[in-house]
Amino acid sequence: MAATATSVREVCERAKHASRLLAQASTAAKDAALEAIAERLGPATAEILAANAADVEAARAGDYDDAFVDKLTLTGERVAAMAAGVREVKTLPDPVGEELERRTLASGLELRKLRAPIGVVALVYEARPNVTIDAAALCLKSGNAVVLRGSSAAERSNAVLAGIVAEACAEAGLPEGSVGFVAGGGHDDMRQLATQEGLVDLIIPRGGEGLKAALKDVATVPVIYAAAGNCHVYVHADADLEMAESIAYNAKVQRPGVCNAAETLLVNAELAESFLPRALARLAAAGVELVGDERARASVAGAIEVGEASEEDWATEYLGLKMAVGVVDSLEEAVEHINTHGTAHSEAIVTGSAAAGERFAAGVDAAAVYVNASTRFTDGFEFGMGAEMGNSTQKLHARGPIGLRELTTSKYVVHGDGQTRS
Amino acid sequence: MAATATSVREVCERAKHASRLLAQASTAAKDAALEAIAERLGPATAEILAANAADVEAARAGDYDDAFVDKLTLTGERVAAMAAGVREVKTLPDPVGEELERRTLASGLELRKLRAPIGVVALVYEARPNVTIDAAALCLKSGNAVVLRGSSAAERSNAVLAGIVAEACAEAGLPEGSVGFVAGGGHDDMRQLATQEGLVDLIIPRGGEGLKAALKDVATVPVIYAAAGNCHVYVHADADLEMAESIAYNAKVQRPGVCNAAETLLVNAELAESFLPRALARLAAAGVELVGDERARASVAGAIEVGEASEEDWATEYLGLKMAVGVVDSLEEAVEHINTHGTAHSEAIVTGSAAAGERFAAGVDAAAVYVNASTRFTDGFEFGMGAEMGNSTQKLHARGPIGLRELTTSKYVVHGDGQTRS
Repeated sequence: MAATATSVREVCERAKHASRLLAQASTAAKDAALEAIAERLGPATAEILAANAADVEAARAGDYDDAFVDKLTLTGERVAAMAAGVREVKTLPDPVGEELERRTLASGLELRKLRAPIGVVALVYEARPNVTIDAAALCLKSGNAVVLRGSSAAERSNAVLAGIVAEACAEAGLPEGSVGFVAGGGHDDMRQLATQEGLVDLIIPRGGEGLKAALKDVATVPVIYAAAGNCHVYVHADADLEMAESIAYNAKVQRPGVCNAAETLLVNAELAESFLPRALARLAAAGVELVGDERARASVAGAIEVGEASEEDWATEYLGLKMAVGVVDSLEEAVEHINTHGTAHSEAIVTGSAAAGERFAAGVDAAAVYVNASTRFTDGFEFGMGAEMGNSTQKLHARGPIGLRELTTSKYVVHGDGQTRS
Repeated sequence: MAATATSVREVCERAKHASRLLAQASTAAKDAALEAIAERLGPATAEILAANAADVEAARAGDYDDAFVDKLTLTGERVAAMAAGVREVKTLPDPVGEELERRTLASGLELRKLRAPIGVVALVYEARPNVTIDAAALCLKSGNAVVLRGSSAAERSNAVLAGIVAEACAEAGLPEGSVGFVAGGGHDDMRQLATQEGLVDLIIPRGGEGLKAALKDVATVPVIYAAAGNCHVYVHADADLEMAESIAYNAKVQRPGVCNAAETLLVNAELAESFLPRALARLAAAGVELVGDERARASVAGAIEVGEASEEDWATEYLGLKMAVGVVDSLEEAVEHINTHGTAHSEAIVTGSAAAGERFAAGVDAAAVYVNASTRFTDGFEFGMGAEMGNSTQKLHARGPIGLRELTTSKYVVHGDGQTRS
């Protein structure tokens, strides 16, 4: 799987050729490939885990941190979850050919707007080998060829998974090259992938800000960045305090290292005195380092340690057990704070009023807005999309989890009986 | 209207501020602004035409060609058409808040995916002053602020139209800065507009390949290019010859300088002898210069002058009275030719068979595919969208005419009753 300049281009050329055929593949053929992937995963578990153990051993010996090694590590349960995810994608409707619009034009033409595959999608991802299977399933089902560029640290695991995908595609009669693999080290492969104009129709970097920065300057093909989440929980004046405490705690503590975890807690001034002492005590007890504005700090009157929040704190994605706390005078001030400092990922309000929920949802400019729920739900699997290729914080094309529909473009198909324009 | 570094940024800052309010403006307020624009245009006709006459005079004295001067020139009829276009956009449904998806998640959350405005849209356009009005109407109705950068050659016309738009917005109570104008010369303004990250959410260059090239290297904000059209008409073996002749003629001759005009005629070998002599004679009589492959040339046996087509001809958007003619052995060969040489804009087949139409529509990878109609219909007005901001040949976000829906993004609004993730 070593990648040279020639091989990246060749993989993309094969994918382009395959994409023309895949665009017209039947739902049955695509579903057969997904079923064949799912069927092969179980019996191959021992082989997958052996390859993965070698990757994990090498990563431990290298300078990867524990979080990375955790993401890299597969277990029997994780392999079973991969198969379940593929079967869930299989049960979803085929997006290709879905009718988005239909109308008769003044000229008498019958216009339909139909979903169509994008073509060749390239995915650059980091540790997690399960992404190999998720991405193959989503792209095949949506009629796209895919070129996968995983981490060199997961090379052995990905090679076994790639073999399973290739066998399954062959068994189902999908074109060779439908799922291509590039497994190199360093940024050169990525640069090559990101500059295959005319071959690669979309590249998705799924990873941290470093990956984004590495692609931003070099990419000449269209990119959808799955970027950072500086998410907020706003507790409105009429909130149920128990619900608010539970949501704020979950959004910060349940898995702090991910993009849909909350970084800032905003509280309406009317309940700062009643809410903050209990909520911050619980967060502090869970080991969360707190910083706050003047009113937030005053509300706990020294009973809980709350440092002084700097301007930078409001803009920071901590990705860990730290939280900024602010007191605002109104829902509108909360919205303004979020639109100024947030990254338009996931934002939550806790309120007893439907009207306040609507005002917040209309005012906040973000991919996902929650009324009385944790920000942690922004995720392709939780959203019923089976899996995701990443989570877009862009506004164009895809916003939020990237699933089957987000992997399509559209095509106008217009029928006439000889119409010409005058 | 002179633009300095400061003023471009200031216009964008005002637009960003306005966009937050516009996103929540009622349909009634937006429609009132559109009605006020339409109402003002008629009485202002004399003033508009006087300003336009000064622009036209200066352009004639400069080194602009006739086609440019034609596009720049307004008439009473063109002003009336602008008002009619605004009223048509007014009658279209407000896209903001449109529900795209709704489902109950496994967690019990109620998820809705709603259309939302993009925010601040910048448009860079060339001669035509009517674009000022079209773009203002489309952006206001879709809840976006817009920053318009027209041609310096249309500066006087655009200043009057900008004044009308500003008055109408004020009368309807829309925020100041909703429609901003930058009227400078040269590429510096454009570069500034295209690099206002955090302020400009989308920039659309509407113009030729030169404009695209000028933006391609400098833009750091998202761009949708409205680029070239190398369009084809394919005449299948079972086509009605009269219909085929009429469609090929219309697609090439009716307005050859636009992107949805056809550049290549492909004909199935079975009817090359019967179809090409009559069709090419009619094209030649209209002054179309013809080049063809060996079989196309042989079919007219020297009776009509058909030069030898080079590889470059198949890839060229002539934008004038020239056409390449090729003979293919099958529908699949036509599809392959189009996917290899085309620009994925508008492609037509003439056929008597619904199945052949379906195969062509499925196989051709383009924004619009026509069965038994001219390629010339790809246009926001013809498609019932009232107007257009341009015609995207990209696959991501918008493909084809850019109207109200294409000027929106989406937002997940998720309601719960305290759900946290476990």
